[in-house]
Amino acid sequence: MSTVEEVIGLKALDPGLKAYDPKTATLLDEHDPLKEFRKEFRLPTNKGIKATAVQENLQEEPCVYFVGNSLGPLAKRSQELLNEELDVWATVGVTGHFDHPLKRDWMTLASKATKLLAPIVGAREEEIAVMGTLTANLHLMMSSFYKPTKERFKILCEIKPFPSDEYAFASQAALNGLDPTTTVVHLKPRANEHTLRTSDILDAIKEHSSSLALVLLSGVQYYTGQYFAMPEITKAAHDAGAPCGWDLAHGVGNVPLSLHDWDVDFAVWCTYKYLNSGPGGIGGLFVHEKWHKEKGVQYAGWWGHDEATRFEMPSVFQPIPGAQGFQQSNPSILNIASLLGSLEVFSRVHPTDPMSVIRAKSIRATAYLETLLRSTRFFVGPHDGEKVLKGEILTGADKPMKGAFTIITPRAKAERGAQLSLLFSEEAMPTVFSEMVKRGVIGDERHPGIIRFAPAPLYCSFEDLNISDAFGINAAATASFML
Amino acid sequence: MSTVEEVIGLKALDPGLKAYDPKTATLLDEHDPLKEFRKEFRLPTNKGIKATAVQENLQEEPCVYFVGNSLGPLAKRSQELLNEELDVWATVGVTGHFDHPLKRDWMTLASKATKLLAPIVGAREEEIAVMGTLTANLHLMMSSFYKPTKERFKILCEIKPFPSDEYAFASQAALNGLDPTTTVVHLKPRANEHTLRTSDILDAIKEHSSSLALVLLSGVQYYTGQYFAMPEITKAAHDAGAPCGWDLAHGVGNVPLSLHDWDVDFAVWCTYKYLNSGPGGIGGLFVHEKWHKEKGVQYAGWWGHDEATRFEMPSVFQPIPGAQGFQQSNPSILNIASLLGSLEVFSRVHPTDPMSVIRAKSIRATAYLETLLRSTRFFVGPHDGEKVLKGEILTGADKPMKGAFTIITPRAKAERGAQLSLLFSEEAMPTVFSEMVKRGVIGDERHPGIIRFAPAPLYCSFEDLNISDAFGINAAATASFML
Ligand SMILES: Cc1ncc(COP(=O)(O)O)c(C=O)c1O
Ligand SMILES: Cc1ncc(COP(=O)(O)O)c(C=O)c1O
Repeated sequence: MSTVEEVIGLKALDPGLKAYDPKTATLLDEHDPLKEFRKEFRLPTNKGIKATAVQENLQEEPCVYFVGNSLGPLAKRSQELLNEELDVWATVGVTGHFDHPLKRDWMTLASKATKLLAPIVGAREEEIAVMGTLTANLHLMMSSFYKPTKERFKILCEIKPFPSDEYAFASQAALNGLDPTTTVVHLKPRANEHTLRTSDILDAIKEHSSSLALVLLSGVQYYTGQYFAMPEITKAAHDAGAPCGWDLAHGVGNVPLSLHDWDVDFAVWCTYKYLNSGPGGIGGLFVHEKWHKEKGVQYAGWWGHDEATRFEMPSVFQPIPGAQGFQQSNPSILNIASLLGSLEVFSRVHPTDPMSVIRAKSIRATAYLETLLRSTRFFVGPHDGEKVLKGEILTGADKPMKGAFTIITPRAKAERGAQLSLLFSEEAMPTVFSEMVKRGVIGDERHPGIIRFAPAPLYCSFEDLNISDAFGINAAATASFML
Repeated sequence: MSTVEEVIGLKALDPGLKAYDPKTATLLDEHDPLKEFRKEFRLPTNKGIKATAVQENLQEEPCVYFVGNSLGPLAKRSQELLNEELDVWATVGVTGHFDHPLKRDWMTLASKATKLLAPIVGAREEEIAVMGTLTANLHLMMSSFYKPTKERFKILCEIKPFPSDEYAFASQAALNGLDPTTTVVHLKPRANEHTLRTSDILDAIKEHSSSLALVLLSGVQYYTGQYFAMPEITKAAHDAGAPCGWDLAHGVGNVPLSLHDWDVDFAVWCTYKYLNSGPGGIGGLFVHEKWHKEKGVQYAGWWGHDEATRFEMPSVFQPIPGAQGFQQSNPSILNIASLLGSLEVFSRVHPTDPMSVIRAKSIRATAYLETLLRSTRFFVGPHDGEKVLKGEILTGADKPMKGAFTIITPRAKAERGAQLSLLFSEEAMPTVFSEMVKRGVIGDERHPGIIRFAPAPLYCSFEDLNISDAFGINAAATASFML
């Protein structure tokens, strides 16, 4: 077992220092290989999030932005590219498509994003397309990969997937004349547990193997922050004779992915979370090379047509081989430009493997944040989650401890990305949340009792993580955590 | 019969003046009720389009931008809104979704666009959604409205629809186990004619009535510029027992539409042409109120879920009644902001009926341009189209007249919008096109022989239209037209 000080890399820097020492954050920041990247972003300010309790002279300073898992911040390079594209549109008009003054022809702009995205998802360029939006792409992929028969018709997913996925599953079941309630199988955690055990997932796949038509989970679960054992699950699905797809909304740009090598059949994602492309930014999809010949495009559009003849407007569809054949419409240049700006930042982290560098900090940062949170007197173990939610945790004086919380995200680093999901009582959560915002820390609230913190490594500093200080209390937390 | 001078409104201004008098354009511009709107746009410049033959001191001036039917120019208001949204994203981050400092909550931003778009397409707000992209929306709509049976399975469309539509038709046929070649019926013009006669369209609908599953044409045909008789065709489809859908890529913002009153079943569009939303901007769709109960959403996503409970994340889909139930994903704020800027310009033209004002100028402008073009010595009648294309038009000296062209767009104002499609010989067209660009006039080339001119009324002036002057020749065209 490693100590926390080892995990967060503190031991190597100052063997005498403890994780919760006030000097720790500064020291970790000084030695953070990603520290230069924080200034690549315009981080939301205290004033912007209405952190009214933060002192006047810090109002224009960045807040503690722990909600990049919902909307990543604006990369300065994205703003630069957007302004350039607006000027190109304004001055050259339609010729920007094929004779762009900055050599970024709109006609092929998506391919620049594909190039930078490929190493982030671990795919060949032909296996991915920058296109559409997540839910729309999920439908496209399910239409090609979910082919239920009388024997094999079940869709296996985690309990409470993101509702859009749930709706998509139900739609696809109904489109095939099936009853969603018997078609969609939800994996449930064991009693008193918050997340799924990998062995239980693998067992469930085996159990349903004869009736399974598709396994589709999220790579990183939006609610619990659990990072599923993607290669093992994919393999188990294949062993059971079913294809395996992934919703990577919270996975892409967060955890290292090797979609090709893991033999994933297909995946879909959005780019407005850890890839910082802006609200409602363009989505993406992956189709494994092994399917390129077999899985035909079912909802064809001209943008998926062979680029060499696309503008000759032939009447018969000839798809681009691979994922890009699924493109239907010409894509939004504003959205691609915005995404490109952020992807360029990733590629400056490392041109061929940015996620390894990011992951290394992610593991340290998340462990550090977790340590500080667990060291407060309001923390209770996750087995008491039910009690926490109902407000049944008591203080030493036998009164309800209003700020009591636990963390439902798995402790093992292999089972989580840059997110911790804190569970409060249903009653206390909204107050805790707004008190935090007042003090300049913004996470994301999910009813009934969850506050999610996402310490995204590209722009969150260790000082940010030291939120016990942000609440004006010592990290050792003998004083009150909040409320 | 009205004279050209009457049609373009010249007679009322100066009864003695002829259309091709050099003073005409200036006079028409002076009295143009839309003249103030030109300055609402940043028009591409001579330099921007590489108009190398335009004199140095005019390089930064606007070119003659006749290609707003491909990509509309940037409205200054769009740029303003985009910059504001970037700053909001940068400073308030995720809270822009529900607590936007400029009262444009991203969560409901699309509804602001819907409001301004409704009068442009002649629909109730619940009948339209600002979402997705054209081809993707077409598939969504066809999946709901194209329900072939053994008897009724045909899709009736115009000859050479936009290829993306052709691919969509073929896809939808194949998805239903049908052979596209027998399923998709193309309406052809008569010999030596370039566009379809309304009576022929109506007859064809009758002819196929027992086997018709869907009539789907484009409102304004992208290639010929023909504006189809939408209400009559819709009615004929209904009489034949088939639903009628429309691809309004070239219709929206170009011609007045009354989708609700015309009883249109569904329609789809893009916004980057006459609505100036930028390359690859957000699309839209219309579903007639009468279908709102009957046509269920087949490819559900969380953004189509009832707004009141969307963020409670219920597991069962409860669609927003009407068109907006078809929304799948949270939409791009950059794209909506850009669209909104342009829609605000439309609403300043007239808050409840901008298209009538725009249409009035469109009719005058297109007639004026047509008159000037027809008065050049290179113009030949459309019945000689075949000869034109093959380069078989001869000069008085019996030599091939290289610049010979005709106009294939219908002459009747009711049958066209703001577009004229010029047909040249296959050989001459590219040269003519590049010579025009050199001289600061940009249209759109479509092989083999077409150059399309779209005098969009919001920003094209009558001076722009006087392109014979742009080519340094008198409008009466005794000198050469070009080449
Ligand atoms: C008539 C018509 N239909 C469909 C399309 C395809 O549009 P999109 O690429 O937005 O799907 C276009 C694009 O120009 C078009 O002109
Ligand atoms: C896990 C997950 N899946 C799907 C979606 C839906 O995304 P979109 O609205 O882009 O389709 C989200 C959005 O936050 C998500 O977090």
